[in-house]
Formats: sequence, C-alpha cells, structure tokens
Amino acid sequence: MNMLRELETPALLLDRAKLDANWRRMSGHIAQLGPSLRLHVKTAKSLDAVRRLHGTRPGPICVSTLKEAEVFGSHGYRDVLYTVALAPNKVGRAAALAASGIRLKVVVDNVELAKALAGAPLDVLVEIDSDGHRAGLRPDDPRLLEVARALAGGGATVAGVMTHAGASYHCASTEAIRAMAAQERDAAVHAAQRLRDAGFPAPAVSVGSTPTAAFADDLGGVTEVRAGVFVFFDLVMAGVGVCGTEDIALSVLATVIGHQEDKGWALTDAGWMALSRDRGTARQALDQGYGLVCDAAGNPIEGLIVADANQEHGIVAHRSGDPARLPRLPVGTLLRILPNHACATGAQHARYQVLDETGRVAAAWERLSGW
Amino acid sequence: MNMLRELETPALLLDRAKLDANWRRMSGHIAQLGPSLRLHVKTAKSLDAVRRLHGTRPGPICVSTLKEAEVFGSHGYRDVLYTVALAPNKVGRAAALAASGIRLKVVVDNVELAKALAGAPLDVLVEIDSDGHRAGLRPDDPRLLEVARALAGGGATVAGVMTHAGASYHCASTEAIRAMAAQERDAAVHAAQRLRDAGFPAPAVSVGSTPTAAFADDLGGVTEVRAGVFVFFDLVMAGVGVCGTEDIALSVLATVIGHQEDKGWALTDAGWMALSRDRGTARQALDQGYGLVCDAAGNPIEGLIVADANQEHGIVAHRSGDPARLPRLPVGTLLRILPNHACATGAQHARYQVLDETGRVAAAWERLSGW
Repeated sequence: MNMLRELETPALLLDRAKLDANWRRMSGHIAQLGPSLRLHVKTAKSLDAVRRLHGTRPGPICVSTLKEAEVFGSHGYRDVLYTVALAPNKVGRAAALAASGIRLKVVVDNVELAKALAGAPLDVLVEIDSDGHRAGLRPDDPRLLEVARALAGGGATVAGVMTHAGASYHCASTEAIRAMAAQERDAAVHAAQRLRDAGFPAPAVSVGSTPTAAFADDLGGVTEVRAGVFVFFDLVMAGVGVCGTEDIALSVLATVIGHQEDKGWALTDAGWMALSRDRGTARQALDQGYGLVCDAAGNPIEGLIVADANQEHGIVAHRSGDPARLPRLPVGTLLRILPNHACATGAQHARYQVLDETGRVAAAWERLSGW
Repeated sequence: MNMLRELETPALLLDRAKLDANWRRMSGHIAQLGPSLRLHVKTAKSLDAVRRLHGTRPGPICVSTLKEAEVFGSHGYRDVLYTVALAPNKVGRAAALAASGIRLKVVVDNVELAKALAGAPLDVLVEIDSDGHRAGLRPDDPRLLEVARALAGGGATVAGVMTHAGASYHCASTEAIRAMAAQERDAAVHAAQRLRDAGFPAPAVSVGSTPTAAFADDLGGVTEVRAGVFVFFDLVMAGVGVCGTEDIALSVLATVIGHQEDKGWALTDAGWMALSRDRGTARQALDQGYGLVCDAAGNPIEGLIVADANQEHGIVAHRSGDPARLPRLPVGTLLRILPNHACATGAQHARYQVLDETGRVAAAWERLSGW
C-alpha cells in the first residue's frame, strides 16, 4: 500500500469511498422508483470498478463499444446493451458475441440498418429521439413501424425502445432536468405503446442520462434506466447541479514543476494528455478551465483552476487572472485536478490508482480502451 | 493487404506518401539552413513511423514522456531530449535511463529542480522563455546563471539551452511566424552566450516548433531544430498557413449510421473518443468543428465538418447549418475526418492503419501511450 507521494505523476486517482457512495445513492433512488438500473460502463471501462459496484452478481450493463461488450461479456456480464446504432461493418462481430451466449441488445433508428441485421440473432431496441440532441426517431414518426417491420422481417427480435435525453446536460435548473426526465419517459413509453399496438412485443422501455436519472420522480412505464457518469461524477455534472464537487471520485495527480511569477502561473506535469481536451464547463455559468485544482488531500484550493493546457504541461492560475492570488505552491507540490468530464479524462489513462478511506493507494484497477 | 472497406470503424488512417513528403520537405529545409533536425516523437509515438523517416540510422529525437524515452531508447535511439521540466518524482527513472547508455538530456528552468538533479548523470538544457506562452526563464533573467551554477554544483552537465515558441501556433501570417522564428532564435542564442560568458560550455542551442521551423530563414547560432506535428500536419497547422489540407497525412475513418434530415445531420460512429476533444480551430478564422469531412478517398466534401461530437457519435453537417446543403450520404457510407490536432487525435488510438499509394492498407503501426 503506497502513499500518494510514491506515485509518479501524472496519475489517475479514484476515491473508492466516493465511488461507493455515488453508486448507493443512484441505485437506491432508481430502485425506489421501480425500474432496474443498467450501468453504462463507458465511463469506468474497468472490470474491477464495475465488480466493486455489482458485487458477485454481474448486473445488466450498457456499453459504448463492442470491445467493452467482449471484455465484460467474457467475465460473466451476459446482459449487455450496445448503445450506438450498429454500423454494417460491425454486424458480424455483434452476431458472434450473441452466438457466444451473451444476450446482446443493439439499437437502430433506420430501415437501412434494420435490414443489415437480417439473420443476426440479436435483440433490437428502436432508438427514439426524446430531446432533439442526437440520434433516434421522434416518438410519432411513421418510420418507427417501418423499422420494426424491417427488423421482424429479417428475423430480429423487436425488443423495445431506448432513448437518451443527453440535452439534460445543458439544463439550467433541477426543475428543467425533472421536466426533461418526464419528457424522456413520455417519449419512450409512447413509442413503445405504438409498437405494441402494431403487434410487436416491445417489452423493454429503456431511458436515461445521469441528470434525468438523478432527478426523475416518476418512471411509470419505464423498465430500465441507464446512467454511467454518476459513478465518478465530474465538474460538468456539478455545474448542472447533479452533484457537488465533493462527490467527484476521479482526479488527476500532478506535480508543480515551475512558475511564471509575474503571470501568476504554476506549471505542472499534467497537460491535456492527462486531463483530456474536454472543456465541457466552458459553456456553463462557472468555467473551470481544464479542471479545478485541489491540494493533495483533495480539497479545492480557493479559485484555482487549470487555466490552459499543452500536451504535457498544465498552467495553474487563479480564475481571476490576478497573479497576487496564486498561493505558494513550491516546485514538487502535489496537486489533484478534478476533471470536467470523467469519461474523457479517464480515457487518457490505462489504470486507476484506487485510494482507500485513509487516502492511501489500495489497488490499481486496469481500464480498457479502443474499439 | 486490405481495402478500406474491410476495416471496422472508427479507425486511424495514415497516408504513407504524405508522411514521406512532409518529412522530405521539412528535413530538406532545415538541412539547408544548417542545424540538425531533432524529431519530436510525441506526435507519431510509433517506432514504425519514426523508422520510416530515419531509415536504418536512428537520428536524434525528443520525447514528451519518459515512456517514449524508454521505448525508443531500447530500440537504438540513444540521443534523446525530454522536453518537460523533470519533476522530482521522475529523477530516479531518468537517471536509470541515462545509466542504461541512453544519452538523455533533460530541461529545467528553476533552482529547485536543478538541485533535485544532483548526482544524476544527466545532460541538462536550461529552458528559455522566448514568447511568454509557457515555461522557461527570459533570456536576460539573472536566475539563468543561478540555475546553471546549481546544476554544475550538483554534478550535472550544463549542456546548453532550449526554447519552444509555441505562440507561433497563434500567428496570423507567415510574416508573423518568420518574426517569431527570429525571436525564438535570438532568445536562445543570447541565453547560451550568457552561459558561455559565465564559463559554462553550453554547446547546444535548441529551438523549434513546426511553424517556426517551417518558416525560419536564418538559424545562425542554433545547433538543432525540434519539430513534431509536421510529420502528419493537421487542420490547426493548415489554419496557420504552414500546410494545406491536402498535406494532412492523418484521418479517422468513420461510417454513416443514421440521419436527422430536418436538421441536415448525418450521424457517424466516430465521436470524440475517435477524434479527440481538441477544438484547436475554434479560435482560428475557419472553425473546423471536430474535423473536416472527406470522402473515402480523402477528398474534402464541400463545406462538410463534424459539427458536434459525443463519446461514440459524430454529427456531420454543412458548416452553414443549412440542411439543404448536406449531400446524400447513405447509411454505410465511409467518410474520412481530418483532425484539428494530430497529437490529440492520434492519442485516442492504439495503432495506425497505413495506406500505400493505391489507398490500400499496407500495414498496421502500433502507437505507444501513457507515461
């Protein structure tokens, strides 16, 4: 068991107690509302992390890549939803996964892809657009039934509908998120009903995003909720009001390597390669730069952000830009940077250094990457 | 040898003929001016790619991580400059590299780090700030000699000076870049002369960035030029005027997986996980979104960019936002996306699919990652 000071920087830190608490809060909330919780593993991308949450019984997961489906599938996770419409060049690989005994569900929102699935032993959810932010058919779109007919005609199972109200990331209040959760639910439930009215079984009604999952108060008709980033949380979620910065389980450990005193800069060895290029807080009320700067114990230092980043250099400064407000941070000082976007920052690293309740490094959990 | 159509998407493509041409142009230009060219391998991060350029004789390289130094060092690259000021927690690892027979040069810009190097068998360059954009001491800073004395006192070799005029990335004209190249040269030459006047040998005068390297017309007093991104080029470099989009050797292969016709969107399976979150063209005259969209042969499609990106979804649209200007791109269409920033996009992938002159996949070159 190591102390932080024994790590080489930059390093990705995961606070296990916060991870556990975030999971308890969300899983308790969804259990109370009724649907099952399908964890999106695209954030953690780590068997060890997901096992920590699910315990000895693998629960339902969703994945953003077939690689995730393969790795988790080969370790007992048999109920897997792949949440990106299946491109024709991936159908063979998905079918092989299904043939290996994994119950792989995929999504499509158009007749062309539905036809490309002909003959593949897959459960298929039709993707519904509940908020205009990305993919899917509007709940009333006549093509919903065309897609279902094309699926059934090719031998696939029309397993239901899925939607993701990603626009919730840009909601300005909890009231707005709650309204978005109702809109997400209504869109999915309505589309599923249209399928059932037309004779398709469509048992699954899958909705979710971390904000709508956190603030939903009525999920009538919904069978499962998907969410991922809540396990770590991040500054974007804090800016949306879904968590506090004290709930963020992920941080990047960095070392001060120099200063430009007249500019009020401390330079660190954690640039965008360690933090990611994500600037998700740029359009929020409080722009956190490339991350919020904490001391080695994880407590934010008043006003300090990563103001700019090059590949392997971070520039730490007070958000006011006032050089006099940079505190004394001698060369060699360890800092922890809270990330804008946990999925993006995690993806820059091969493993987590897992901190226990005493702040010591209790384990290293490997991450997977690629497609 | 595969056709593009046999690849699963997203995939990182490297056009070998463009790589070769970019190398020929830059190495010829620097050779004509006199200094040696020290290739920055932080862009390619691939032994195969650098071997393609250097041929059978490993040339001098610079690295952004000790991991790069170790991988290249163990494959015959013995003249290595690590361009990030060496944090105290990395001194032991750097010293072990030097002890293994690699001539490892490191940089520092403060007395604290200089003292932390005491006893390590390293050549050290003092980092000079030639443009105010990041680290280093101003050429006239009295601390320059203090750092040199601290180095010499600890037994390190004061091997010279290095500077990187990264501000050249934001120059608005080739005249401005040429002036920046002169400023970069003058700062380094002047600082080296101060060290020599004080009795330090300081033979090395190392300067460079892709823009200043490309447009420098007089490098008197400079011993070596460092550059990296020129091997691939990217949209940021095209925006600065250092290359044309037709010189960009790197692209991401994506598949169209759906549409939102009323918005003029084609959705692809290349999101920010494949493209990176880099938005380096956002502050240039021509904002390229998350990348410029080309057909499968690599020819730009008029006005088409990746307007937005989620983790595994790209949203392709005409830059005007006019839905009528989205061309017909049926589901299954292959597209190639030119990246904003080659270093950032490359870092999202484990390997290059290398295209030969006929556009076929001739090889897969592995990339390294991490620290």
